[in-house]
Amino acid sequence: MTPTPAAVLDGSEAATPSPCCIPLFRKPLDDAEADRLAAVFKAVADPARLRLLSLIAAHEGAEACVCDLTEPLDLSQPTVSHHLKILVDAGLLTREKRGRWAYYAVVGPALEELGSVLVANRAR
Amino acid sequence: MTPTPAAVLDGSEAATPSPCCIPLFRKPLDDAEADRLAAVFKAVADPARLRLLSLIAAHEGAEACVCDLTEPLDLSQPTVSHHLKILVDAGLLTREKRGRWAYYAVVGPALEELGSVLVANRAR
Repeated sequence: MTPTPAAVLDGSEAATPSPCCIPLFRKPLDDAEADRLAAVFKAVADPARLRLLSLIAAHEGAEACVCDLTEPLDLSQPTVSHHLKILVDAGLLTREKRGRWAYYAVVGPALEELGSVLVANRAR
Repeated sequence: MTPTPAAVLDGSEAATPSPCCIPLFRKPLDDAEADRLAAVFKAVADPARLRLLSLIAAHEGAEACVCDLTEPLDLSQPTVSHHLKILVDAGLLTREKRGRWAYYAVVGPALEELGSVLVANRAR
């Protein structure tokens, strides 16, 4: 049984954090951690990609057909595909072809882990 | 009495979220929200700036003298100052001159609000 990505978020404080979720407040990041995190933040740091992420995240089941994503953004289909690929490559979206359309789903744990980097552990 | 930035984090679910902390999963971002958020994520999406943030955040009192920040990063003082200015301009650090040195402190609520954008509200 392979643990699901969500399992890392269900663990206690004692669980080993995944490489991408070491809160900034705990200890200084080393070079490799900073490089890896910066690459994922770079994927998010674009207005069109933030809008795509939120369109998909707010969609039923946090999944959407690419056919539902071009019109709200008023961008060309190739431009939307380019942004979606960056988000898939960063591990923030999954892509599945079903019939003639591709469907994109948010990788919730990946977004939450990225978010958790910025949040101080106030309980300590 | 002006409310402190921290006050927005002490509110309940019913509190009005500040413009920068509308979780992606709640509703699609509009253009203005996406532009504003992307600009702050852009400030974070750099390895040197992530290391600076974490050096300061992990320092006692989440504050550090600029004199303690150049050596660990192995960057020139002007380069470090440039990165620090971007973080101050993004509202993620404050800068205070005391004697001959500038001291930088993490704006915890600003980081937490940015992080909270990425986190689904699992209680809903």
